[in-house]
Amino acid sequence: MQAAVLHAARDLRIEDRAARAPGAGEVAVRIRAGGICGSDLHYYQDGGFGTVRVREPIVLGHEIAGEVAAIGAGVTSVAVGARVAVNPSRACGACRYCLEGAAQHCLDMRFFGSAMRMPHVQGGFSEELICDAAQAVPLPADMDLTRAAFAEPLAVCLHAARQAGDLQGKRVLVTGAGPIGALCVLVARHAGAREIVATDLADAPLALVRKLGADRTLNLRADAAALDPFAAEKGYFDAVLEASGSAIALGGAFAALRPGGTIVQVGIGGAEWKLPINTLVAKEITLRGTFRFHAEFALAVDLLASRRIDPMALLTTVMPLADAVAAFDLAADRGRAMKVQLAL
Amino acid sequence: MQAAVLHAARDLRIEDRAARAPGAGEVAVRIRAGGICGSDLHYYQDGGFGTVRVREPIVLGHEIAGEVAAIGAGVTSVAVGARVAVNPSRACGACRYCLEGAAQHCLDMRFFGSAMRMPHVQGGFSEELICDAAQAVPLPADMDLTRAAFAEPLAVCLHAARQAGDLQGKRVLVTGAGPIGALCVLVARHAGAREIVATDLADAPLALVRKLGADRTLNLRADAAALDPFAAEKGYFDAVLEASGSAIALGGAFAALRPGGTIVQVGIGGAEWKLPINTLVAKEITLRGTFRFHAEFALAVDLLASRRIDPMALLTTVMPLADAVAAFDLAADRGRAMKVQLAL
Amino acid sequence: MQAAVLHAARDLRIEDRAARAPGAGEVAVRIRAGGICGSDLHYYQDGGFGTVRVREPIVLGHEIAGEVAAIGAGVTSVAVGARVAVNPSRACGACRYCLEGAAQHCLDMRFFGSAMRMPHVQGGFSEELICDAAQAVPLPADMDLTRAAFAEPLAVCLHAARQAGDLQGKRVLVTGAGPIGALCVLVARHAGAREIVATDLADAPLALVRKLGADRTLNLRADAAALDPFAAEKGYFDAVLEASGSAIALGGAFAALRPGGTIVQVGIGGAEWKLPINTLVAKEITLRGTFRFHAEFALAVDLLASRRIDPMALLTTVMPLADAVAAFDLAADRGRAMKVQLAL
Amino acid sequence: MQAAVLHAARDLRIEDRAARAPGAGEVAVRIRAGGICGSDLHYYQDGGFGTVRVREPIVLGHEIAGEVAAIGAGVTSVAVGARVAVNPSRACGACRYCLEGAAQHCLDMRFFGSAMRMPHVQGGFSEELICDAAQAVPLPADMDLTRAAFAEPLAVCLHAARQAGDLQGKRVLVTGAGPIGALCVLVARHAGAREIVATDLADAPLALVRKLGADRTLNLRADAAALDPFAAEKGYFDAVLEASGSAIALGGAFAALRPGGTIVQVGIGGAEWKLPINTLVAKEITLRGTFRFHAEFALAVDLLASRRIDPMALLTTVMPLADAVAAFDLAADRGRAMKVQLAL
Repeated sequence: MQAAVLHAARDLRIEDRAARAPGAGEVAVRIRAGGICGSDLHYYQDGGFGTVRVREPIVLGHEIAGEVAAIGAGVTSVAVGARVAVNPSRACGACRYCLEGAAQHCLDMRFFGSAMRMPHVQGGFSEELICDAAQAVPLPADMDLTRAAFAEPLAVCLHAARQAGDLQGKRVLVTGAGPIGALCVLVARHAGAREIVATDLADAPLALVRKLGADRTLNLRADAAALDPFAAEKGYFDAVLEASGSAIALGGAFAALRPGGTIVQVGIGGAEWKLPINTLVAKEITLRGTFRFHAEFALAVDLLASRRIDPMALLTTVMPLADAVAAFDLAADRGRAMKVQLAL
Repeated sequence: MQAAVLHAARDLRIEDRAARAPGAGEVAVRIRAGGICGSDLHYYQDGGFGTVRVREPIVLGHEIAGEVAAIGAGVTSVAVGARVAVNPSRACGACRYCLEGAAQHCLDMRFFGSAMRMPHVQGGFSEELICDAAQAVPLPADMDLTRAAFAEPLAVCLHAARQAGDLQGKRVLVTGAGPIGALCVLVARHAGAREIVATDLADAPLALVRKLGADRTLNLRADAAALDPFAAEKGYFDAVLEASGSAIALGGAFAALRPGGTIVQVGIGGAEWKLPINTLVAKEITLRGTFRFHAEFALAVDLLASRRIDPMALLTTVMPLADAVAAFDLAADRGRAMKVQLAL
Repeated sequence: MQAAVLHAARDLRIEDRAARAPGAGEVAVRIRAGGICGSDLHYYQDGGFGTVRVREPIVLGHEIAGEVAAIGAGVTSVAVGARVAVNPSRACGACRYCLEGAAQHCLDMRFFGSAMRMPHVQGGFSEELICDAAQAVPLPADMDLTRAAFAEPLAVCLHAARQAGDLQGKRVLVTGAGPIGALCVLVARHAGAREIVATDLADAPLALVRKLGADRTLNLRADAAALDPFAAEKGYFDAVLEASGSAIALGGAFAALRPGGTIVQVGIGGAEWKLPINTLVAKEITLRGTFRFHAEFALAVDLLASRRIDPMALLTTVMPLADAVAAFDLAADRGRAMKVQLAL
Repeated sequence: MQAAVLHAARDLRIEDRAARAPGAGEVAVRIRAGGICGSDLHYYQDGGFGTVRVREPIVLGHEIAGEVAAIGAGVTSVAVGARVAVNPSRACGACRYCLEGAAQHCLDMRFFGSAMRMPHVQGGFSEELICDAAQAVPLPADMDLTRAAFAEPLAVCLHAARQAGDLQGKRVLVTGAGPIGALCVLVARHAGAREIVATDLADAPLALVRKLGADRTLNLRADAAALDPFAAEKGYFDAVLEASGSAIALGGAFAALRPGGTIVQVGIGGAEWKLPINTLVAKEITLRGTFRFHAEFALAVDLLASRRIDPMALLTTVMPLADAVAAFDLAADRGRAMKVQLAL
């Protein structure tokens, strides 16, 4: 089977890898669609992020959907031929965090296409992938797999929004209008936000998120003071979803947030950021991290299948696996691309 | 009447000021006890903190108690001669935040002894002070006013602990064992914390907080790695009360906090701090500011009166108003002093 | 001016009442649209509900919108001619509950068209109504006043949904598909509910709520066991919005609710209800009341103006004030009417 | 080994039962102390409660502590001879509720001494008991096993208090001063309640809970109107812990609870109770059930070992297993007994 294997920064190769049969409780999925994520790009461009480094060849990819090719002994949840979205998280189900309902903090997590542990967990930009049956989430028979491959990043944003509490009737600022910021706009709209303002440094993604439901967009490169009016009377927004991974964007949000408001840090970036701690104290601001997802994967599949959330406007293009290098290069170009998927 | 007036950094003078009679709804309090707070020290040592600067002579002091000397028209809540703790907060009662139950964010707050607004709001290191009747909280007739002068900093810590949620059964780290950290230990113990660990850079305050109920103390100057064992399995503490106002103390707490845990930033310091944002994200940590107090002032008076919380071990000494300069100098010396009060 | 005055049960008269000019801070509103609410019907049919009885002639009506006819001294928030929705709540703004942000529990509440206090507070089925300026919430100049008259019941349902916590991704059961139940369906959908099931004893309202977004409806008269499948594995729904005011509907919801789930009791009925308390205990169910609304009135106006929530399918008909008796009789007939409004 | 076996209501026999060796992962505990619980009394007096009936002989008892007599293969958490408190809950660790951190709702729960499932789960009034290693919670070597046998009911009350949210600074009403009510008083005090009022129909238990920390007690048999003053201004208490299992006690609490307050229903009684639903609605009261415990068992052991909570004043007497019938009869007599334990 063909797979996109990263050997080091900028060294992405299409290689033939041996397939294996699914063991008991496992499923072999013929992957058909795989979205390129920001973390895939970090691996590709920089060989990793923070302390996470590519130390051996790794198949990237964790936004994936396909068809069941074979099932192992005892599997009853899916049949051969069924369309599935693949949940890239495999938590142990036995550690303290799993038993507290916080499997995203599992002490023995295996996440497809991640170099966090050694040996690395191989990912989904591969014609075939073996996963636990519970990771293969069934789809309606006629569901477009391109759409289904949005389940993972949508789950990330559903989980992020949950950290901000009930958004119905709330005023929400989304900083950063890349794929995660754009999905956050969709999620906040779906959750009944009263008003959504989105910021970015580029016009193209802002135009897109307006189409997705943002009430107003601000290009902070064009007007660095565009958020200033929201600072009156101690602030305007109830919640901020910080999706840019930029310390400057995060810092700029403090003034526009009302006392007692919440910032959810979704994006990741440098290890250490300078923050206006006195404002956090004086306005009793809550700054909260969000990490991956848990129950939200199944919810994301539901919302995509019912089209209550429709992310297809994010899809820039689909390119064949053979063109993976070009696809990664395109995905890295914010002026031209929002979400690029590989067809396998 | 005599008052301790700060004219500029290091320029604290005992001066005679004219007293005035209380107007309708007001009370004149003959102040007897006044604690020196960290913010008083910032004014005295540095002429302010952050953007808050002493721009005209100001009577400092907001941890105060005394006896009612006179009452204005219509006052029925207290009688002349009654002992009272003075709540230094005077919120407007009409702005959006007051009507949301968050008077600590009042858009027109007048806080005794604060240089935040111009003209400054004169404070309580003064033989007599005029306040609204609602600010004069009655005490039992026999209550020691020295004890009562702890109501304000205790209210700060009760409000801070509330930001961490229910502490019963929780493991709590208190970073910084100054007066606020020490009161946080008392408050966490009172709230039913399962285990309290306190850190500081000096032994003397750590010895005190052990007496106040900390289960264990760590001198991070003596052993910079003393918190490391708490980082195992993604962290140990459910909550951190950061009372040192030090970026280093805050940053050091992230590793010891378990996923989903909460840090309440109580201390204030420099305007901008570097923080390990990736850890905040990966462990879904909540970092929340806490600012002054609201309903907790009355609660603090109750707890002091009933001695369910007893802060008297914090009191280093009481010095006469005439010795205010020496008292401030002593209060600034962490090796010798925890809480210094003025007698007026 | 003409008004619909209730003298006793079944004794509703159109009478001429003297208008008065607005005082300082007040506004005179020329009412144009007024919805008949369930509590109006209780007054009309039964002379009150529970201990609240009509003891003197009362103008009913609190779902009202109109145009500003005159303004008193000092009013700047609205101008003569502006369209407004009238918030029927006038809280004191000074009692403990108002200052805690819970004005719906104001100790001195005056609610238009309510017989709770004596003298009764006259209501809005009147050509002109005097209210405080803050109660006259401005509308877009072109907004249909019929639509605007839904602000009050929509605010009730927004407040109710808030008591259930974040509904995004939740499975919600709405029991009772009258006007309040139907608006609850709209609100739950707007808040991102994953699945909405509605129950009633009649087919007509169930057909309507399916159009409004309920995924599935169950006629419990036709099939008393229709909820039984949801009881498997200790229950299915995360939240129940009980909008029927029926003890039977509430009791029936316990089995279908999952452990830890929440029932919000929106409807009111008899004073005492029999409840399956052992199920509440064993499944750790939360049963919570919801009463009127507070900040949600402004939110409701926003959502109606932007059409993010569109209640117009609920409107059965509009009848002239002169036909108020016929309008009340129609409104009381669930087989023929959902929401009936008076045109004034 | 000897055990107290209930064959039917009022038919409790001391019988010899065969012991078995612990299997892999299991521990044999030589039980030394076993408290008689209210549910044990329901089985003994009535043959069950609600739909739970004794259908085959059952060893009762689930408030138990002892020494490890033998360990099965692979057990490392305890050694032979160690003192342990036995957690009577054995959840499956794999169902949806276990994986959500709500093991008390486990779909396959085995709870010692419970007739909920068939065959019944045999309990701990037995000289030896086999449990999973995780159920045997180690104690300090010198800890009194009589004290340790309070871990289970204390865990119930810690879990109950948690349902009321943060109790620090709150005014708490405890209705019913039996063993569970008395432990609730200890727990509320430990959690920093501002004021605790307890009610009962008998003087003896009220005298005890005053010693345990209740600020005030009310005998509602002596004065049925004793709670009336607390109904002023819409109510006084922030939280009610209903520990009597009486519909009358629960109903009476509604008037004394402030708007937005919470009632936790701890006690169980008849299947259906009449409740003042209109008050629940108008005051937006939360009524929440609490069921057993989960993580609180380990916390209870900690608090007993450190004596931060000391329940020993509840212990009426300890009687030998041979006198189990007399012990049950004594335990059922509220005038003479609070908590009766068996020594095995």
